Amino acid sequence: MEKKKIILNADMGEGFGSYRLGNDDEIMPYLSSVNLACGFHGGDPVVMRHSVQMAKQCGVSVGAHPGFHDLQGFGRRMLAVSEEELYCDLMYQLGALDSFVRHEGMELTHICPHGVMDTLVSENESFAKVFMQAVKDYKADMKIIIEEKCLLASMCEAEGLKVAAVGYPDLEYDTDGNMIITREKEVMKPEKIVEQSIRMVVENKYRSMDGKEFPIHPDVLCLHSDVPNSLEIMQALRKGLTEAGIEIVTF
Amino acid sequence: MEKKKIILNADMGEGFGSYRLGNDDEIMPYLSSVNLACGFHGGDPVVMRHSVQMAKQCGVSVGAHPGFHDLQGFGRRMLAVSEEELYCDLMYQLGALDSFVRHEGMELTHICPHGVMDTLVSENESFAKVFMQAVKDYKADMKIIIEEKCLLASMCEAEGLKVAAVGYPDLEYDTDGNMIITREKEVMKPEKIVEQSIRMVVENKYRSMDGKEFPIHPDVLCLHSDVPNSLEIMQALRKGLTEAGIEIVTF
Amino acid sequence: MEKKKIILNADMGEGFGSYRLGNDDEIMPYLSSVNLACGFHGGDPVVMRHSVQMAKQCGVSVGAHPGFHDLQGFGRRMLAVSEEELYCDLMYQLGALDSFVRHEGMELTHICPHGVMDTLVSENESFAKVFMQAVKDYKADMKIIIEEKCLLASMCEAEGLKVAAVGYPDLEYDTDGNMIITREKEVMKPEKIVEQSIRMVVENKYRSMDGKEFPIHPDVLCLHSDVPNSLEIMQALRKGLTEAGIEIVTF
Amino acid sequence: MEKKKIILNADMGEGFGSYRLGNDDEIMPYLSSVNLACGFHGGDPVVMRHSVQMAKQCGVSVGAHPGFHDLQGFGRRMLAVSEEELYCDLMYQLGALDSFVRHEGMELTHICPHGVMDTLVSENESFAKVFMQAVKDYKADMKIIIEEKCLLASMCEAEGLKVAAVGYPDLEYDTDGNMIITREKEVMKPEKIVEQSIRMVVENKYRSMDGKEFPIHPDVLCLHSDVPNSLEIMQALRKGLTEAGIEIVTF
Repeated sequence: MEKKKIILNADMGEGFGSYRLGNDDEIMPYLSSVNLACGFHGGDPVVMRHSVQMAKQCGVSVGAHPGFHDLQGFGRRMLAVSEEELYCDLMYQLGALDSFVRHEGMELTHICPHGVMDTLVSENESFAKVFMQAVKDYKADMKIIIEEKCLLASMCEAEGLKVAAVGYPDLEYDTDGNMIITREKEVMKPEKIVEQSIRMVVENKYRSMDGKEFPIHPDVLCLHSDVPNSLEIMQALRKGLTEAGIEIVTF
Repeated sequence: MEKKKIILNADMGEGFGSYRLGNDDEIMPYLSSVNLACGFHGGDPVVMRHSVQMAKQCGVSVGAHPGFHDLQGFGRRMLAVSEEELYCDLMYQLGALDSFVRHEGMELTHICPHGVMDTLVSENESFAKVFMQAVKDYKADMKIIIEEKCLLASMCEAEGLKVAAVGYPDLEYDTDGNMIITREKEVMKPEKIVEQSIRMVVENKYRSMDGKEFPIHPDVLCLHSDVPNSLEIMQALRKGLTEAGIEIVTF
Repeated sequence: MEKKKIILNADMGEGFGSYRLGNDDEIMPYLSSVNLACGFHGGDPVVMRHSVQMAKQCGVSVGAHPGFHDLQGFGRRMLAVSEEELYCDLMYQLGALDSFVRHEGMELTHICPHGVMDTLVSENESFAKVFMQAVKDYKADMKIIIEEKCLLASMCEAEGLKVAAVGYPDLEYDTDGNMIITREKEVMKPEKIVEQSIRMVVENKYRSMDGKEFPIHPDVLCLHSDVPNSLEIMQALRKGLTEAGIEIVTF
Repeated sequence: MEKKKIILNADMGEGFGSYRLGNDDEIMPYLSSVNLACGFHGGDPVVMRHSVQMAKQCGVSVGAHPGFHDLQGFGRRMLAVSEEELYCDLMYQLGALDSFVRHEGMELTHICPHGVMDTLVSENESFAKVFMQAVKDYKADMKIIIEEKCLLASMCEAEGLKVAAVGYPDLEYDTDGNMIITREKEVMKPEKIVEQSIRMVVENKYRSMDGKEFPIHPDVLCLHSDVPNSLEIMQALRKGLTEAGIEIVTF
């Protein structure tokens, strides 16, 4: 029987200047890939270089995590950009991050849109097209981290772009199986996250708050690094997945 | 006898959002190279893409024009960045602009530091080293547009980096032969600029306000596009140089 | 018979750093009131002080022109702010501008929301309430420049806030009587604007592109200062209104 | 014998959007005054309102903590502003913060320049004059928190402006008695800080790293809230000062 494989992933490099967000340096060794902010919703050039160098050291795949140019809103407030603006903002952020990545002799393996940019390109057909165009124009072999059931995922297939389906084992899901995103990050129980992760990878299911089960086929598990006990979670997760016979792989 | 050659150059793409600066689209056809702002002291992703596309259409060489991240001061207020910040700001801006350049099938031929970043890297040894490191790390064959007599120019030679010596025929020079930079851009006499340009290229001299002459060996003549009569100047210059038997070349 | 009165108004002080927008200094003497940007969608502290001082010199009423904190989009891209963010952004901008106004011994006579902030607070009940709360909390006697038929206008009456109904004689109106806002500012015919202005003030009507007429009862005529021939328009307008027996008054 | 009095003070409200800095809410009850960031080097309108409301609740004096408009450098990178820019930046920030302060029925009791703006106005005569002008123009009775031995302090006296001399009991001092400012905030020993504080207030001396003593006459002790054990420090300090018979007062 073939061994189950999974990519462990998190958003990183989202600090800015004197501001820190999450314990990137401690957590990165437990992951196999990271999505790095590109200076628009978070991140600055110094943070970006440091994060890329850390990723190289940890043997972790680097992807771009572009967002809207709204630092105050952390890319979580919808902004009515034009299609041209979205395209150019993507190309700009990709090039900026890639400058550090290429200098380290690495390459961008994937892209994961941040915050409401994810919402916009996942569900709006016109903006989904713009997003795909930017991916094709910048580096067509980057995998796109999105939810398997979104519109963009289905459009990518038709265009020959590669989707990496994502599961979020540390989020709660409502009775319809939709993620519940809250601003306040609290301590989360590592056991619960390990359990949900294994359920996602091995059983191809996830469980909502009220115990219902929904199908999922994740290539990537994306974890949040800005919770107080993120280190504990990552350690438990790595251990739990390995014990469950799941292989943790890079992109 | 060999024909004299010169590169006609200007800073461009320095608008931001709704704000315009200069008549880039009208003037670009008269140039043979442009230095494009990279979103820090001026320029935004939409402006950058447009400028790169225009440059391709006009057959004009594209270079990077990185500056300090101070839009309000337009990169003209000295900012006490660290060496690490300067390096990372350069790599970031180079990658961002290059994203649009590479997509058009072009390549960055040169780099010209903007405003007080120019001052800093031209005369401060530590920052000059950082600047050269960024050029080497990003694309070592880019020519560096700076004044021939500055510290950086002498350091570049030793490091095998290529300098493109610049003359500014539309600036006034004081009694010591130093440029006088003023914030207010006024109408300038085209004949005077053509005359000074020919003097620079053919006689290898330039003349200060009080009539003294100083030596210069320009590879590039850099013109300012944000004066009211910039179009008239560019037309006169192109005509004047051609009539003087000077060949206008790209990088 | 009582003489008709009107306030001549324009958005001003929307430059930023090296970027200029419109010929504020030339045009201001022809107006009787200005809405000054507060540093978010446009304007910076130096521009703001200058504009306030100019207004004092010209005997022109000063009002606040707050917008979203999106310089790149010039406050014209909808941003999903929270109610708390809108309230705090308003209080911040009002206080910042008022600092310069109070120092000149003047007071803020009015407020006019900019761009999509106008759209948001004019038509969304929750945000209209937030806007009114900020006005009450900051300076309850400021007049609010908005369209007479919008939701906010009707809500203000109930709350005891004073509305200054606005007409835009230099905009085109579609067949339903709605303004057509375009990004590109072209030369507009002064005669047409004078005609529409007089129609608005004297006949209490305005005419759409297809010749239909709609009712309007303006206290204020708001003109755009960022068209190439704005000075000519302002001169023609001042002359035309005076000749039509209309008195131009301040707030 | 008269009881010794001291104002306990800290910089606060320096978070921005999703970014937090220090445990303001926990620590504020132990202070008697705060310097609130005004949105330039840190702070945003939502953070500012919250901080002002907290201060009111805690019965703590509110002062302005203006800085350079450089969020990425947190106002700690010298920026070559003009005198006009400094003046306008000060008036803008004062008005913006005061908007929230006045709405709570409070008033600005003091001003404390942040980071390198402090350095600039404390020691450069021209900029010191500009700073004093802004204080006079905005609210002349605000106390100015600076070091007693700086140039600005001596100039204020001559101008009738009130200085509140500051001591920093949680910083190390070098062999010349000058503060050592480091970027990395580490855990500091509460006992040591209490000891230095009492020495400053009661003995009018402070001790450098090598044991030398220097004179000081503080009206205010300014503590740093962004160290990991800041709460513990504040508690120890309040207890220690009280036990030493020192009265903690507001402005």
